[in-house]
Parts: sequence; C-alpha cells; structure tokens
Amino acid sequence: MSRDPLNLAIVGLGNVGTGVAKILTQQPERMIQRAGRPIHVAKAVVRTLSKPRDIALPAGVLTDDLQSVIRDPNIHVACELVGGIHPAKEIVLDLLAAGKDVVTANKALLCQHGEEIFNFARKQGRTVCFEAAVAGGIPIIAAVGQSMAANQILAIQAILNGTSNFILSEMLLKHQTYAAALQQAQALGYAEADPALDVNGTDAAQKLGILAQLSFGTKVNTSQIHVSGIDTLQQTDIQYAAGLGYTIKLLASARVNGDKLELSVRPTLIHNDKPLAQIHGPFNAILLDGDVVGNVWYSGRGAGQLPTASAVTADIIDMAIGRAQLTFRQLDLWCDTPRFTLAPEAETRSRYYLRLSVEDRPHVMADVTDRLGRHGISLATVIQPEAPETEGGTQTQVVPLIIMTHRTSRGSLLAAEAELSQLASVRQPLMVLAVAD
Amino acid sequence: MSRDPLNLAIVGLGNVGTGVAKILTQQPERMIQRAGRPIHVAKAVVRTLSKPRDIALPAGVLTDDLQSVIRDPNIHVACELVGGIHPAKEIVLDLLAAGKDVVTANKALLCQHGEEIFNFARKQGRTVCFEAAVAGGIPIIAAVGQSMAANQILAIQAILNGTSNFILSEMLLKHQTYAAALQQAQALGYAEADPALDVNGTDAAQKLGILAQLSFGTKVNTSQIHVSGIDTLQQTDIQYAAGLGYTIKLLASARVNGDKLELSVRPTLIHNDKPLAQIHGPFNAILLDGDVVGNVWYSGRGAGQLPTASAVTADIIDMAIGRAQLTFRQLDLWCDTPRFTLAPEAETRSRYYLRLSVEDRPHVMADVTDRLGRHGISLATVIQPEAPETEGGTQTQVVPLIIMTHRTSRGSLLAAEAELSQLASVRQPLMVLAVAD
Repeated sequence: MSRDPLNLAIVGLGNVGTGVAKILTQQPERMIQRAGRPIHVAKAVVRTLSKPRDIALPAGVLTDDLQSVIRDPNIHVACELVGGIHPAKEIVLDLLAAGKDVVTANKALLCQHGEEIFNFARKQGRTVCFEAAVAGGIPIIAAVGQSMAANQILAIQAILNGTSNFILSEMLLKHQTYAAALQQAQALGYAEADPALDVNGTDAAQKLGILAQLSFGTKVNTSQIHVSGIDTLQQTDIQYAAGLGYTIKLLASARVNGDKLELSVRPTLIHNDKPLAQIHGPFNAILLDGDVVGNVWYSGRGAGQLPTASAVTADIIDMAIGRAQLTFRQLDLWCDTPRFTLAPEAETRSRYYLRLSVEDRPHVMADVTDRLGRHGISLATVIQPEAPETEGGTQTQVVPLIIMTHRTSRGSLLAAEAELSQLASVRQPLMVLAVAD
Repeated sequence: MSRDPLNLAIVGLGNVGTGVAKILTQQPERMIQRAGRPIHVAKAVVRTLSKPRDIALPAGVLTDDLQSVIRDPNIHVACELVGGIHPAKEIVLDLLAAGKDVVTANKALLCQHGEEIFNFARKQGRTVCFEAAVAGGIPIIAAVGQSMAANQILAIQAILNGTSNFILSEMLLKHQTYAAALQQAQALGYAEADPALDVNGTDAAQKLGILAQLSFGTKVNTSQIHVSGIDTLQQTDIQYAAGLGYTIKLLASARVNGDKLELSVRPTLIHNDKPLAQIHGPFNAILLDGDVVGNVWYSGRGAGQLPTASAVTADIIDMAIGRAQLTFRQLDLWCDTPRFTLAPEAETRSRYYLRLSVEDRPHVMADVTDRLGRHGISLATVIQPEAPETEGGTQTQVVPLIIMTHRTSRGSLLAAEAELSQLASVRQPLMVLAVAD
C-alpha cells in the first residue's frame, strides 16, 4: 500500500529539532513501515542559516523564512521546537491558522497559553500533539489520554525534572553539597547555564499543570500550584531523611480529595520502600493511580535530544496515521465544566518533616511540642540527636531537633510554624518538608 | 456532539467480563466523555444462564446464544473473554466473519493462533485489540505499537507473571519454602487451583511471544522460547543470590543480537540496583530498550479483574473513537519479511550462576574450574561457604560451591555442565540460573 507522503516542517533546529530531523531522514524505511506512508522533511526553519549544524539536509530544505512554510499548502504538519513563549506562541497560532497540524514539545507555552492554543486549533479543525512536552521519553500523554481512558485518575506522584533529580541523587549518594552537585549537573549538560527554572520547581510545575489538566479537566495556572524548589535544601536534611528511611525528591503531586484537587511541587520525603525513592540520576518517573486499574508507573529519560525526539516523532507518526486527530478531538482538555476545583493551599493535607535548630536547655522540647499540639498537629517521630556534653560554659549550644508529624493541614502547619518562630529558643530558619503518603 | 452508540457484546462473563460490564454500565457518562459516544452493552453471552452473578444487567442482555450476537448487525464490537483455545478461537473467527471488531484478553489464543486470527481479521477488514492480553494494567501494547514507533526495540526484560513474582517475593522476604509460598498465593487468589502454567513459565512465554512479535516482527512459537519455571527453585538459591547482591525473578527476556533474536523465560538473577529487582508481590514490570529513546519502563498489576477490565475497556473506547482500527492496520504483526530470526539456544549468551554440591576433599575445586575453563568459561565469582571442620570421619562431607561466570554461550555452558555431572566429586543435581546483564 503506497500512500502520499506526509510533508513536514521542523521549526527550530536546535538540539531536539536536529534529533527529529536525523530520525526522519536516516530511517525513511522505518517511518514508512510505522506510518504507512513516507514522512518527508520539506522545510527546516532556523533563525541563522549560516550556523554550523550537526546534520546535512538536502538543498532547499533549510530556510530562515517561516512564511515559506505558512504559504505552502503541501506542508501538512509542522513541529514547533523553538521553545519559550515568544515567538513560539505566534508561530503555533500562525501555523494552525494556515491549516497545519502542530506537534510541540513546549511545556511552558502549553502551560501558560494551552487553552487559547487548543481552542483555536479546534476552531480551525486542526490538531495539536504534545507528548514530548511532559517527561520526554515517557509516553505519559498517551497513557492518560488513551490507555487509562476507563479510569478517573485519583492521584499523580511524579519526578518531572531530571536536573533536580540528578542533583538530589548526587547529594544523597555522593554526599555532595547542593552547589557542587549543581555544578556537576551543568558540567554533564543536564542543567542549563541558568538552572533557575529547573531547581526552583517551575519546570516541574509547568509539566504538572499540563498533566493535571489532562487528568482532571481542571484549568491550572502554575501560579495556583504550591511550588518550592530544591535550592534551599541542605545536605543535613538529605542525611537525616536517609536515617529515617526516606529519600528526598522534588515531587510533583496531584491528588483528588472529594471534589477538590490538591496540587504541589516541592521537595518531599519518600519512603525508601516506594519505587519513586529509588529513581536516581537524570530520570523522570510517574506514578498514576486510576480508580479502575490501581497504580501504574512509568520511568525513563525526561529530557535530552533523543528521548524528546522519540516522543516528537511518535506524534508525527500518529499524525501521519490519522490517529492523533481522533485523539485530540476526544481529549479532556481545558473543559468548561471541570469536575474538580483547586483546593486552597491551607486546606491541603500532608505529613511533614521539620528540622529546627534549638537551644540545648531545659523545657525547649516542651515549648516546641506544645506549639504543635495547640494546632492539633500530632507527632509521629521526634529525634534530638545527642550533642556533646558541655559543663558550665556561658555559650548555650544549638542542637538540631527533627520532627515527623502525622497528617495535618497546611494551614495548621503554617500557623504552628509562625508560633515556633517566635520562640526565643528556636533559631531561624526552620526547615519544613512534606512527607509523601 | 451526539453520536450513535457503540453496541457491544461481551462474550464470557467471568471475572474480567463482569468487571468490563460493571465499568461500562456504572460509568455511562465517563464513557461518553472518553469515547465521544455512548457504549451500550447489548448482549452478554454466558454458558449457564442460571448461574448467580455479581452484576445485574437489563432484561434481554444476558443470553446463552452466541448466534444472537453473530446475527445482530447492530452489534459492532464483541469482547472475547472466554479464555483458553477452544471454543475461544472459533468464537473469535465467527465474530470476525460476521463483521464484528473483536477485543480479546486471550494471550494463549493469540500466541498460538495469532497469525491466523490477525490475517483473517485483516482480510475481513476488521480489527482485533488485545491490550489486556499482556500485562493487564500496563499499556504495553500501546507503548510498543504507538508510543515507541520511532524506535527499533533492541531489548525487553520483563516480569510478566504476577503469581511467580509473588511466590519469589515471599521466598525472599519471608524466607518461605516454594511450597508454602505457592499455597499462600493460592489462598490469596493469585494462583489458580492448577498453577502449572504460571510457575512453569508457560504463561510468561505466551506473553513474551506476543510482545516479541509486535516488537521485532518475528513469528514466535512458544516452543521456540527457552523456558524454565520457578518450580525447581530452592530457598538456598534465593539466599545465596541475595548474599551476592542479586534477586531472582522469573525474567522474560528478548534481545536483538545482530540479525538474531534471543528469547528466554527463566529464573534469573537480577542485580539489586536494577529496578526490576525491586518489584515485589503480584506485579508485572517491563523494561523496553529503544534505539532512540533508551530505556523506558512500566510497572503495574498484570492481572486481576479490574486491571484487566481497565485494559479491555480502553480498547473498547479506542474502537468507539476509531483509533484502534487505524492502529491495527499499521501494527507490525506477523509480517512476512521478519528483520530478525530466532537465535539457536546454544548460541545465546549470558552470565550464569551455578550451585554445585561437591565433596569436601582435595582437588575438587581444581576439577570443577578445569571443566569450566576447558569450555572457555571464565569465572567472575567463586564462593565455597565455610563448612564445619571434621577430622578423621569416614563420611565425606558435601558442601555447596557457588560460581558466577562471565558471559558465555549456552552451548558452552551445557557442555561444561555435562562434564561436571560426570565428576565423581559432584553430586546431582546442579543448579544453573541465568544472570541478567
């Protein structure tokens, strides 16, 4: 069966774009076999034509003129692999307006402007695919949108930022400081020159936002997600957690609680007998809890040229087959009647790990536990590591105090935390981390 | 958008069939939302109408007459959930001949008669979906057939039989004997009254056969897979492996080696730093190595009413959307020009664990290692656990000798094993287990 080729434009020939172009041009037979028709890279749009590139394309394919794609009615599908919000947004809208289906790996764009882009695409009768936007090598969009279609997803627990996970693994396994581990991540190419969006939780929050919208039909702005990063974590917390049998991960979490949806991205203690605690290095992992299937989980590389290009190419093949168009029509995206509303942060519930620096003198433990108890916070574990005995000095020693609480509301915790800060015997800052169920 | 309902027949209302009927009849709104149209259970075909059932269906739905489905042109899709080879095969062929698309969870049927069934379906212009046939709750058919479409899969390592995995976990973690662990699996409903197909590797081999055909386009008969089960494993091997840092799993493995494909299902030592070693209890896990994406892995419940019903229902929704039809047309199933041929067993290569019972007397170690060395088998680890000192007794003591080899061919190993068996100082039987890379 010989069918017309799918003519494709790749807009943005950076790391991922080059990977996609390589797969498509170096494996034409494989593409025909998988897609049932040839996939032809008609144009590759770049900003700077003269830049040296790691791929040789036939004459006439490389161009710096997006309009040559927009105006060509024979180009059916375009990949937006420019990244960032502008001009990526304008490029995607122009491509859709010109009748192209669009494949994108742009999580920031979809998280911030997904509603507008998807609504416009549907109005135009076009399709947008975005498997590569969340957890590159893990087919999580297909899992949620298709394989788990019989389920209402009840919870998501995920490691969605490989850079942070690499840093945390180095801190745990090689006892490195945060700064040294970050430097190592940059040296290995896992972290950008400016790693802020990775380590402060923004990148993971954008991906969680997309996953949450797909899974719960609830519009999520990242500003509504309770986000904290790994950039204030200390080696000492990594080690205390390890001593308690936990590993700290930057956990993206979504949980249905009645008709409320709790969303957070934060460093979280995960018990070592949970699979997520065992995911070390620059990997992603996602645990989905479906009301029919139970727990299903996925792990793989979340970023990098080839894993991301693999996901983009799978989307292109889906477009060539015609399957993507059917899927997109049916996806529960940005719907108008959400089944769940976002829970106010103060009402979300979790177990917590607290590390306080307290003066080593009588009644401190009573004062601290009293403040927690007043807010209904019950204690699961209290550890005051033994400090060296001192006698008769005038200097009061400061010692750590580690507390693991039972489940409590974020509101109660914040109120207790404020009172603890007022205690003369408690030094700033308090370290407060969530503990996963 | 209101579309015609999809009229469905469920053939076989056992555990899984009842689960599917429950989801479809108890969640009609969810089905409309996911499929874009109602899914209507028109008929449920059973053998015995009078049997008490865990589900109430509207009058006229329950029937013992398959012909009422065959003859009804308004029934578009039928689920074969009868299991076994006969009459399941005849039922599926009759349904296809009558113009129905078919969803099946029947791994034994597809493994043995898949070629005939799929060819007939394609000839009839019909579709067969079988996500539930392999690793129920894990969407592995979609992963291989769709999400990894940019890749040539290079290797599969999988735990595909939950019953065996439960038994191995009990033996490792609770130090139970094989017999006691099996009894426990039966008491919990994980193992059938006759658990032979689970524990002797047949069930896993059927699933590996289907996965291998999908991933490599190579026709596989289970008789061509090197299969051994967990039923001869001893507690002592579980513990020696643990001491060496390994966990024994019933591993289904496929590996591309040049243009050859190596397939096996056998108890295998997996190093504890590999995720598969950490999968305990009645779960399945699958590691796929794609040439573009690298390693991606999946875990979840491989069997049970709801996980399997979740997969069947996802297939039904795919049919209702029209996506399954496109996928089936494109799947690389039982193709005529396979890219790989099966490697003869003697040529397959692996590391091995050997446990010998040897007489505790001079030159035994030299004899044993000489036989291995003659066949080019090089040793990675040799452990002879210390035996209590005896003096002057006439009875020669028998002691265990544990050897881990470097990679060698199965042929060399079998030849060395035959020679070892001839040694007067080596008692029968030798325990030989593969060690995963």
